[in-house]
Amino acid sequence: MHPLWDQLERAASLRGDQPAVRSGSQALSWREALGMAGRMACVLSGNGVRDGAGVALISPNSLAGLLLPFAAECAGGMFVPLNNRLTCAELVEQLLDFRPALLLAAPPYVDIAREAAAIAGVPVMLLGDVAEGDEPRFDSLAADAEPLAPCGISRDAPVAIYYTGGTTGRAKGVILTSDRLAMNALQWAHAVGARQDEHLLVVAPMFHMVAGLNCIIAAVLACDLTILDRFTPAGTLDAISKLKVTNLAMVPAMIEMLFAEPGFAGHDLSSLRILTYGGSPISQPTLAATLENFPGVRLYQVYGQTEGGPTVSILGPEWHTLDPAHAGRLHSAGKPLALTAIRIIRPDGSACDRGETGEILVRGPAVSPGYWNRPEETAAAYRDGWLHTGDAGYLDGDSFLFIVDRIKDMIVSGGENVYPAEVERVIVLHPAVRDCAVIGIPSERWGEAVHAIVRLEDGARADEAVIIAFCREHISAFKLPRSVEFREAPFPLTGANKVDKRALRKDHAGTSAN
Amino acid sequence: MHPLWDQLERAASLRGDQPAVRSGSQALSWREALGMAGRMACVLSGNGVRDGAGVALISPNSLAGLLLPFAAECAGGMFVPLNNRLTCAELVEQLLDFRPALLLAAPPYVDIAREAAAIAGVPVMLLGDVAEGDEPRFDSLAADAEPLAPCGISRDAPVAIYYTGGTTGRAKGVILTSDRLAMNALQWAHAVGARQDEHLLVVAPMFHMVAGLNCIIAAVLACDLTILDRFTPAGTLDAISKLKVTNLAMVPAMIEMLFAEPGFAGHDLSSLRILTYGGSPISQPTLAATLENFPGVRLYQVYGQTEGGPTVSILGPEWHTLDPAHAGRLHSAGKPLALTAIRIIRPDGSACDRGETGEILVRGPAVSPGYWNRPEETAAAYRDGWLHTGDAGYLDGDSFLFIVDRIKDMIVSGGENVYPAEVERVIVLHPAVRDCAVIGIPSERWGEAVHAIVRLEDGARADEAVIIAFCREHISAFKLPRSVEFREAPFPLTGANKVDKRALRKDHAGTSAN
Repeated sequence: MHPLWDQLERAASLRGDQPAVRSGSQALSWREALGMAGRMACVLSGNGVRDGAGVALISPNSLAGLLLPFAAECAGGMFVPLNNRLTCAELVEQLLDFRPALLLAAPPYVDIAREAAAIAGVPVMLLGDVAEGDEPRFDSLAADAEPLAPCGISRDAPVAIYYTGGTTGRAKGVILTSDRLAMNALQWAHAVGARQDEHLLVVAPMFHMVAGLNCIIAAVLACDLTILDRFTPAGTLDAISKLKVTNLAMVPAMIEMLFAEPGFAGHDLSSLRILTYGGSPISQPTLAATLENFPGVRLYQVYGQTEGGPTVSILGPEWHTLDPAHAGRLHSAGKPLALTAIRIIRPDGSACDRGETGEILVRGPAVSPGYWNRPEETAAAYRDGWLHTGDAGYLDGDSFLFIVDRIKDMIVSGGENVYPAEVERVIVLHPAVRDCAVIGIPSERWGEAVHAIVRLEDGARADEAVIIAFCREHISAFKLPRSVEFREAPFPLTGANKVDKRALRKDHAGTSAN
Repeated sequence: MHPLWDQLERAASLRGDQPAVRSGSQALSWREALGMAGRMACVLSGNGVRDGAGVALISPNSLAGLLLPFAAECAGGMFVPLNNRLTCAELVEQLLDFRPALLLAAPPYVDIAREAAAIAGVPVMLLGDVAEGDEPRFDSLAADAEPLAPCGISRDAPVAIYYTGGTTGRAKGVILTSDRLAMNALQWAHAVGARQDEHLLVVAPMFHMVAGLNCIIAAVLACDLTILDRFTPAGTLDAISKLKVTNLAMVPAMIEMLFAEPGFAGHDLSSLRILTYGGSPISQPTLAATLENFPGVRLYQVYGQTEGGPTVSILGPEWHTLDPAHAGRLHSAGKPLALTAIRIIRPDGSACDRGETGEILVRGPAVSPGYWNRPEETAAAYRDGWLHTGDAGYLDGDSFLFIVDRIKDMIVSGGENVYPAEVERVIVLHPAVRDCAVIGIPSERWGEAVHAIVRLEDGARADEAVIIAFCREHISAFKLPRSVEFREAPFPLTGANKVDKRALRKDHAGTSAN
């Protein structure tokens, strides 16, 4: 079987020679895309990407990158997009973990790719507009190749690996299969009501799974697809108005950047009808601006993680309203996709009651089968048919999912579970506070004690008693910080630009609270 | 894995204790339905329905029948609904083919079930309101049982067998798996835009796959579901108006019966928003009446066959219009579902051009893996990953599918392929003609010759020359009947109420045309 390839063939059959897939100045019909993917597969196969071996990619978004998963499946291989913000050492680590047969590198990442590939012993081919270098040119080879007939792969064969995390140690490769990707595409299309007449615009980088999934969605729908080489507010607005884009996937910060763009008002954005966003709930002001600037657009908040395939749940447009009666729902991650189920459990594995926070478990046809080369992490995360997401959350009485925090950041204090994010959300409401991080520190009396680290606004003043008293107005006593520390330096960040709680906890490993 | 069971659990989790599943005077929440299915599974498992053994059912529609596929999967067994219009001999034939561990029989089919089961050596349990008999009562046993924990089944394990056909010999059991059923449910839901707030009404008998699929769709959507024990126009209208039904699946003849019902105008049918129909295209007058009587309803024509999972393609509401510019599309079976592909081939296996009629092939994640116990028929119908439907059709320039005829009825005359249905559709347009059937008869000159058998309207007159001249105005010369025969007797019919072409051809086996 070759389910991804089947989608390309189907799109080619349904849409024939109409231009549909665009990047930069290029526009291909799905039939041309099918031909290009087949020729790419021929080059891949001839260079070792077959029988389960992989091809890695480091590149800005491009047509070749978009078609690479299809070409890799056709050749019987695998596709691994590398994060182009990684250091050379991190690239080496992932290349050694995955050991691809080939690395494709496009400017401006050619030098770092060469360096990493030389250390990891991986052959390099160049992609795109490269002036110099002795390595073979993938584009030219593919242009001259004969299309490869698709190799059959087994249903459970990995077809793509997306590296994730890094906040808990080394990045882990999440295994995805063709079936699961096609399935998640259909689940998403059903949830947002997307059809063949859509025009999807992809602005996220291809090494983020949301971008990869959007390309597969476009093939499944046989609809129009445009990918920008990178996100810029001006480029996004231009593409929407010129190409009559109907679907766009963003994070709330990107939506705000669109509105802040000077030329915003001059664009005709009336074609847009589906706007999905993820990463975080949308704020009330951003929602208000979105509803005003995109009247008639259906807004969907998407919750997922790469391990989940990636899309797990969606909050629909009916809850994206300024009506105060529904305001609480705006912070919800919505309901699970059709065929996907969610369960919330306590640390002992028993089911949580409604409203009780616990670890979010996910089951469904798109959930990844595990991590590449990590049997122990796989066994820990995938148990009894359920993915243990590591996210803490709860279901309300109407089965809406609310995300609270990461489970590993949970503090157990006096036998009660405290989620730092809940406490942080209160502390930052204090007018003197610029930023804060809450961690658990060892306590002889409580096991762990809730400890707040606070950065004040310039010139503002507050002490421990003030912060604790402020918290007391908003949260239960057992969640209150037992101690508050003030710091001026910015918080240490992880590779994913989140506060590095492990580093903060390490600083306090010797201290002990009561 | 147990994908059907997962849907029941998911629906119970999402909808909790709200009444959702209705039959007669009974209304269960999905949580109660889950409990009932678990208790049924316990009785099934204790009576041999486990480790792949099956349970057969002969019954009017009922809650127990609706939950039986879920219960059978939970027990690790299979579900086989029997057509309640079969003769005892036909029931015996299917029981001996499938050899279930148990037959559940409900009135008024208890006597014929007992007779067939005795011959086939299958134990019987009684279902529903049965006054007499020594057999165990399935309902009572299930009411007292403890819910069974779902047994894991393998992904490719058959979970249901639907018998089909009979026009080409013995009925064949089509194998369906849980995964495929859940997949087709989601494909259908995507195609028609159905969501959790639907209320599905099932009026088709459960031994038709469309009824079984609708029950699974309801579980997948966690929506409301009502099943009538059998179709009556009055009962259907009552259910729509009283229960605020949103979705209904029919055949065009049933839609016409609704309009002809004396009480039609008195019902509030405004809740209906999705009306799907299959079996044949809708006629212009029925469409006009439907658009008038159900304003705002989205109409979908569905093409499928049990082997296809069953749904293959759908014609959407935008083509259900009286606008003459789109009239041609009304006869189309639409476009393939997302993830499903269609190909049209010539007898030599090569791809047909657009507009050229050939055999319809289907590929997709819901397509059945084959026939029960029929390796040869399976090998013939499933080749290179494609289901060979036996239906003749073509794709137009915009990839709309048109169904023309059954391939086995195709006439090869002078090296040209002629589909009888095309010729029949012309002949019945002649005002003197009541009915007609076109077959191929042996011809020394042409191999086969097109032969028309015509029944005239009472008192009407026409001869061979008139019919042929009439045809000449509408179809190509090579499709013209070479001979026309007039008959008064009705045509012989198959078990599926279609004209029995095999019987007609048999009558002409000795004759030969030029």
